[in-house]
Amino acid sequence: MTDKSSPAPGRANPFGELIGLTFSRPEQGRSLCVLEVREELMNPNGILHGGVVYSMADTGMGAALHTLLPPDEMCATIEIKIVYLRTVTSGTLRCETRVIQKGSRIAVVESEVMNDDRLVAKALGTFSILKRIRESSAE
Amino acid sequence: MTDKSSPAPGRANPFGELIGLTFSRPEQGRSLCVLEVREELMNPNGILHGGVVYSMADTGMGAALHTLLPPDEMCATIEIKIVYLRTVTSGTLRCETRVIQKGSRIAVVESEVMNDDRLVAKALGTFSILKRIRESSAE
Amino acid sequence: MTDKSSPAPGRANPFGELIGLTFSRPEQGRSLCVLEVREELMNPNGILHGGVVYSMADTGMGAALHTLLPPDEMCATIEIKIVYLRTVTSGTLRCETRVIQKGSRIAVVESEVMNDDRLVAKALGTFSILKRIRESSAE
Amino acid sequence: MTDKSSPAPGRANPFGELIGLTFSRPEQGRSLCVLEVREELMNPNGILHGGVVYSMADTGMGAALHTLLPPDEMCATIEIKIVYLRTVTSGTLRCETRVIQKGSRIAVVESEVMNDDRLVAKALGTFSILKRIRESSAE
Repeated sequence: MTDKSSPAPGRANPFGELIGLTFSRPEQGRSLCVLEVREELMNPNGILHGGVVYSMADTGMGAALHTLLPPDEMCATIEIKIVYLRTVTSGTLRCETRVIQKGSRIAVVESEVMNDDRLVAKALGTFSILKRIRESSAE
Repeated sequence: MTDKSSPAPGRANPFGELIGLTFSRPEQGRSLCVLEVREELMNPNGILHGGVVYSMADTGMGAALHTLLPPDEMCATIEIKIVYLRTVTSGTLRCETRVIQKGSRIAVVESEVMNDDRLVAKALGTFSILKRIRESSAE
Repeated sequence: MTDKSSPAPGRANPFGELIGLTFSRPEQGRSLCVLEVREELMNPNGILHGGVVYSMADTGMGAALHTLLPPDEMCATIEIKIVYLRTVTSGTLRCETRVIQKGSRIAVVESEVMNDDRLVAKALGTFSILKRIRESSAE
Repeated sequence: MTDKSSPAPGRANPFGELIGLTFSRPEQGRSLCVLEVREELMNPNGILHGGVVYSMADTGMGAALHTLLPPDEMCATIEIKIVYLRTVTSGTLRCETRVIQKGSRIAVVESEVMNDDRLVAKALGTFSILKRIRESSAE
């Protein structure tokens, strides 16, 4: 039920649910997530808030990298740069992500966000790969 | 009433309200926004979602730059890079932003996000400055 | 003679020549530049200095964007993020660049740097498009 | 003799010497490097090439982080974003760098480049900290 919006199947993703993010088509080193633009995601200018687009990329990057990790490893965002190409006011957003390189400790990941087939944002990020210690410790 | 969470006083900021962002202390070229960490902002690892921290920086940058613009101008995020220094699981986040440089068409803005006085993220962004055309057109 | 190393044919590119950058195959919105790794471009660890790889990307981005500009316009780098995927110690570097989006004032450009067919760096940058005023004024 | 231009005293820095970089005032977690603008560092528009400014930041970041590492560790640039605030045509450049955070595997570093006391560029980068293996292996 909730695993549609969860990069790690079976684990809840509260913020992903808050903004309405859904995931599909898991593949090795790739992810696809989708979001319907709606009023409560807007900024004061009546445009989709850039933080929503960023959150798609960040979550999608974690999900794509997750497909390449053994069960005892997890990942954490080190940094992401996102550039906005077009404003979004309605419709569906699709975020396609792929892992460019996965080392033992660092991974580089790239996302493209499309609004009805037009590229609206591109993000390039770096993740840290960590041993999982009792589920909830990230560093 | 709603202007606490609105960078442009008097104008609603739906996404800022969704995540619980509040603004205070407007100054020339600076902004300060605050957010209480709560369950629905978490990622699947039980850690504050990086998209929330980013959204504080993005919104805070727009608010700081807004203080320097005449009424007929608005701004739009071109790109932001954010780097995460520590994970956040509880408490209050404060995002302090300052405009590093404001040209006629481009501005460079910097944010630091603190969690109970520890630096947890730093962001460096570029904004486009635009003539306001009938309120809702951004480019 | 010198136009091999000059993005703007007929105009000298002193720093490009200093590091040994050569350009070929100009196309609409794309550029390709090449550099032979040599001893004087190394860092103290005996590895190609990251500044050389960055300089290929920055120069290649300007050259790719230049193909899309009328004679009375020029461009200037606003910002670039570069991520390094592998270290380089010898061989030839090829930097392939394409303009992702060109607006009237802002362009977004992407470069990939290959070392003997392996991706060694990726860069994502933003450029400002300016009216050319007496050749040497950039802002 | 050559240690003026070498972040690791006693080890040559060929590219740093090629562009004329000199270091001084080593401190814990900080570095300062200086460069005189000269003709061979220019781009085709008669302006200091952005790759030179970037190279100061990249080298300065490595030097600042180097002060915090034990002898058996070295560092490598993961990624850097640099934003340019003003063009440079002459004078002296000073690059001041400080380590914002040093973990066991990752460090975040920041540089500001000044041209005769005006801020001309700002860079925010991430470095990987590695065990040194026979001096010349970086990963």
